[in-house]
Amino acid sequence: MLHTFVALVQDKPGVLTRVASLFRRLNINIVSLTVGESERADTSRMTIVCEAPEHAAHRIRASLYKLEITVDIDEVGRSEAVIRELCLIKVAAGPREPNGLHSRSQIFELANVFRARVVDLAPESIMLEMTGSSSKIEGLIQVITESGYTILEVSRTGRMAMRRGHHTSRVLKALGTPNGEQPVTIFPDRSQDDDLPNQFVEDET
Amino acid sequence: MLHTFVALVQDKPGVLTRVASLFRRLNINIVSLTVGESERADTSRMTIVCEAPEHAAHRIRASLYKLEITVDIDEVGRSEAVIRELCLIKVAAGPREPNGLHSRSQIFELANVFRARVVDLAPESIMLEMTGSSSKIEGLIQVITESGYTILEVSRTGRMAMRRGHHTSRVLKALGTPNGEQPVTIFPDRSQDDDLPNQFVEDET
Repeated sequence: MLHTFVALVQDKPGVLTRVASLFRRLNINIVSLTVGESERADTSRMTIVCEAPEHAAHRIRASLYKLEITVDIDEVGRSEAVIRELCLIKVAAGPREPNGLHSRSQIFELANVFRARVVDLAPESIMLEMTGSSSKIEGLIQVITESGYTILEVSRTGRMAMRRGHHTSRVLKALGTPNGEQPVTIFPDRSQDDDLPNQFVEDET
Repeated sequence: MLHTFVALVQDKPGVLTRVASLFRRLNINIVSLTVGESERADTSRMTIVCEAPEHAAHRIRASLYKLEITVDIDEVGRSEAVIRELCLIKVAAGPREPNGLHSRSQIFELANVFRARVVDLAPESIMLEMTGSSSKIEGLIQVITESGYTILEVSRTGRMAMRRGHHTSRVLKALGTPNGEQPVTIFPDRSQDDDLPNQFVEDET
């Protein structure tokens, strides 16, 4: 099964190597990994999606936490989380395509339905940008392909996850409550409130 | 200076470890790395942004190409490319914030201006999703912070790049022209046409 971990790590050279070789040692395949800056200058936030048996989650979490670069680690798979992926798709469209210049308007329509944005238009290709769940992105790719268009290039970031609502107190605690605030009292841990109506419906296609 | 490489690699276990340790050996710091599926089932596309002297680009490219997992490698830094990043930002907003419930509408307005989308709304926080250049994302983060709001969590994918227009022939050639098509003749390499009016203006804020 797929596990999604969100790790807050120190932003040091070699962090990626250490995380990647940890998973290599555990003999667990990383499906996708994204890493970028977090809300603090000296830490990065990583989303790691890996394929592992259900019982392995605890071991992965403990191993990640043992790396001294790890500030905080969270498995978001089971809790309510927003999971998004960014995808760029370059599609052949233009006078030489089967439908000629109509191919462009047909792709514009598909993009509209999937709430994708056109970010580049060249004489013979269109580049679309789309964010959403992996299944939605795969839906767009499938529709484009089965409509007879040629996909020239696809680039995807892999999944990025963030817990909905009030999860943040634990993160701020791990960071040592920046700015001298007391976020722990301002945002009490309300993990028991998971059934509160704070699950904003994602745009669906 | 920052270099951006787009690599098409075989989708095998350990690919990430190999690429990460290659950069470690070269003693070059990876600023961001995204990896996800490409247009072919057995290959992934990686965007690697690294900080290295200008003259090092050739060496990095050659070293990456020497890994037998690499199908194709391209440095997009100097050519016209779409460079996007996905960011999730959780902001404290709600009755306990300085402006009370007005804080929500103020954040909605900022999101509108930056074309960010609200993807979660909880009693005391709002989650925004935004895609764009790194500087635009940093712009939104700065505006939110300087307007007096507390950013609870930031998660960023790191930059993903795709060449504009007609770059694709070389990629398809490296892939061995899938589906028996002849894309090399359909999409001739027009790198000399870089000044064609195919640079779609990115949405600017």
